[in-house]
Amino acid sequence: MSQYPSELSILISYLKKLPGVGRKTAERFAFYLLDWPDDEVKKFSKQIGSIKEKITPCPTCGCLKDNPACLFCDPKVRDPSTLCLVSSARDVYAIEETKAFKGLYHVLGGLLSPLEGRTIEKLALDKLEKRLIEKPVQEVIIALDSTLEGDATALFLKQKLNSIGVKATRLAFGLPMGSSLDFVDYGTLEKAFTGRQIF
Amino acid sequence: MSQYPSELSILISYLKKLPGVGRKTAERFAFYLLDWPDDEVKKFSKQIGSIKEKITPCPTCGCLKDNPACLFCDPKVRDPSTLCLVSSARDVYAIEETKAFKGLYHVLGGLLSPLEGRTIEKLALDKLEKRLIEKPVQEVIIALDSTLEGDATALFLKQKLNSIGVKATRLAFGLPMGSSLDFVDYGTLEKAFTGRQIF
Repeated sequence: MSQYPSELSILISYLKKLPGVGRKTAERFAFYLLDWPDDEVKKFSKQIGSIKEKITPCPTCGCLKDNPACLFCDPKVRDPSTLCLVSSARDVYAIEETKAFKGLYHVLGGLLSPLEGRTIEKLALDKLEKRLIEKPVQEVIIALDSTLEGDATALFLKQKLNSIGVKATRLAFGLPMGSSLDFVDYGTLEKAFTGRQIF
Repeated sequence: MSQYPSELSILISYLKKLPGVGRKTAERFAFYLLDWPDDEVKKFSKQIGSIKEKITPCPTCGCLKDNPACLFCDPKVRDPSTLCLVSSARDVYAIEETKAFKGLYHVLGGLLSPLEGRTIEKLALDKLEKRLIEKPVQEVIIALDSTLEGDATALFLKQKLNSIGVKATRLAFGLPMGSSLDFVDYGTLEKAFTGRQIF
């Protein structure tokens, strides 16, 4: 598709960088943008250009904020006795949707993956340790992905937290809501057996 | 997901307007953009903001151009004896990829769809008629989608072109390359029978 006007090709190459977007989809997006009203395109462009200035990570917990004060660190609404460890700021919003947690958060900024160069130094662990020493919490909930990297990171964190003397818990594994037994994978079923609870 | 910082929600709402992008994908795009390097985001934003000024439709044929001269109207490289009718500027690039056509193009800007308010007046037909009268072509190739709207538009154009006295042809229908008979739908198979050719 080298026939496209060069400026359009540049736009397509940027759109192609978005996650899960291939050449065809990027072309579709670009042609769609050409059909948008001028002022909408301008506003969209401005929003993208200014987003990294408007949204910044909280220096304490790592959650996103667009105000000087972080909503998730506000001692008036959040319970400081529990702290939830997540890998990215996005996970915070998924947990907030459940309305099951009212404590503090701490964003690690990734999971351990030595092969991809994400070593212990890359995680926001110093900050975490400082927080736990300054204001002791009663329980740290490890809310990481149920993947190889998530498991490795959780195991490492468990040892770390135990050495500081903090109680560490991890999210439960088991059957997803609405699932039927014969469609659940064996790994999940095994975890559901191991983690069975008194009914 | 009303918990997102408002500026991030605005960005997500814009991204959600892209074709085929739902809430989850838009959120994924937005968080991905937050992780991009600052200068990349700025360049991307600038490219979007300026695209409608840089890329304009050719006033003669309706193809996209970023130079004062339209590549597809250049009499030095394009054969003026045939003219290909397409519904959108994007189709031109698909046809160009085949390298099977070296004539002129004319972009209609849509297909007839009275229910969606796309009537005859919305298509670039006056311009087409003017072109055909000023510089007579020997053959007009109707290259429209094989859909209900494409068929209706093609039928209308055929009558229009015949009334001006121009030979109209339409792209062939039949088996797609590499297809096996038992996987082809009945409509296509019927068209392939009707349009069979001496071998």
